[in-house]
Amino acid sequence: MRYELFYWPSIQGRGEFVRLALEQAGAEYIDVARESEAAGMGVAALMRWLEDETIERPPYAPPFLKAGDRIIGQTANILMFLGARHDLAPTDEAGRLWAHQLQLTLADLVTHAHDTHHPIAGALYYEEQKPEARRRAAAFRKDRLPKFLGYFESILRRNPHGNDHMVGETLSYVDLSMFQVMAGLRYAFPRAMAQLKRGHPLLDALSGRVAALPRISAYLASKRRLPFNQKGIFRHYRELDARPARKAAHKSK
Amino acid sequence: MRYELFYWPSIQGRGEFVRLALEQAGAEYIDVARESEAAGMGVAALMRWLEDETIERPPYAPPFLKAGDRIIGQTANILMFLGARHDLAPTDEAGRLWAHQLQLTLADLVTHAHDTHHPIAGALYYEEQKPEARRRAAAFRKDRLPKFLGYFESILRRNPHGNDHMVGETLSYVDLSMFQVMAGLRYAFPRAMAQLKRGHPLLDALSGRVAALPRISAYLASKRRLPFNQKGIFRHYRELDARPARKAAHKSK
Repeated sequence: MRYELFYWPSIQGRGEFVRLALEQAGAEYIDVARESEAAGMGVAALMRWLEDETIERPPYAPPFLKAGDRIIGQTANILMFLGARHDLAPTDEAGRLWAHQLQLTLADLVTHAHDTHHPIAGALYYEEQKPEARRRAAAFRKDRLPKFLGYFESILRRNPHGNDHMVGETLSYVDLSMFQVMAGLRYAFPRAMAQLKRGHPLLDALSGRVAALPRISAYLASKRRLPFNQKGIFRHYRELDARPARKAAHKSK
Repeated sequence: MRYELFYWPSIQGRGEFVRLALEQAGAEYIDVARESEAAGMGVAALMRWLEDETIERPPYAPPFLKAGDRIIGQTANILMFLGARHDLAPTDEAGRLWAHQLQLTLADLVTHAHDTHHPIAGALYYEEQKPEARRRAAAFRKDRLPKFLGYFESILRRNPHGNDHMVGETLSYVDLSMFQVMAGLRYAFPRAMAQLKRGHPLLDALSGRVAALPRISAYLASKRRLPFNQKGIFRHYRELDARPARKAAHKSK
């Protein structure tokens, strides 16, 4: 079966978590909104699914995945579905819920990262909410960012099967998503990430391993991987990142 | 088995979605943080679970549910767990994922409702972010609120088994959560809710039916149901609600 992924065509966004799972699974899929409208695809096709009032179980927003007759929405829900089918999640119920719980916590972090540049409304441009964004980003860098990363670092540290995976002893969609979140945070907040006091060596090591997986590595080098940009969820605005670290020489004056 | 629910003791918050499911299930449970610290419970017990570094699968934040040896976090994840055990969700995989997808979309709406009074940081008081809250609340009332409610109203309208339930032909945790969201929105934004142009008659009817369920009705009349208040997720600040509707007589002048 060939999956159809529906997501905005010019950003990684939340769709990227699904893309990474599909790529690692070696699944056949079409990234519909990035295909030609002349061929019945493109954003027009995505909008048709969102607006069609005859759909019994409609998604609220992209990303959504068409799998045969089914349309599945909500990023973490899609990953739970794919994880079970493509050996990217534990098979026991407790492990399955634990992986999903971590994914939902990652989704919370992603929303917070998004809201640093859109604290007022998604319908407004960043330029229309810059003062509020500075305040929200400062609070995010000070509290949420270290708390979330400290938590995820501890998940690797606590894993009784070793520090290689977020869940159990094999690769899961949670590892792929964790890689994506770390990449996004490094793009958006390079200084803040470098200045985090406790660091996150296990997360860094995990990110490196995921990036080196043959299928992920090939994907990242392909045109299918969109670059980070200033329209996505993770955006780099210098004024929202930490200030440069002061040099020791200055402090001792 | 007696469940142990861990959530902040003075608010409905996200814990309320779990409480409603436990109540409707007729499940035996302790609302741990509302019990006495002298008896080893209270907020101190909640904090112990959050801070204990020996827990292999720790929750990031309340609510979390202890079920035997397992600790399950993330509201929607807890509901998926309880739904399967207490006949509050479809039993087929497609139905189970669909119910969960709706719950995750409700969770998104809840986060937006929360952020109307906390657009900058959860660590700050409302009074420290009032101008930003006014802007965010105005955008929420104008765009998100009607879009989300229009979506959920349409879910009832599209249900091929009739308009009585969000999913399928029997009660699920999604119905309970939908009731709670409607109650919260009516408390927080009474004017905006009354002024919504298209209305939401099916959601109103569903809310009435859920409130009248014998177990839910008994719960709502009990002391176990905390009142809405100004510390929770749904808060009523007049300045964040819509302005009074102008009278027709004024318009015709």
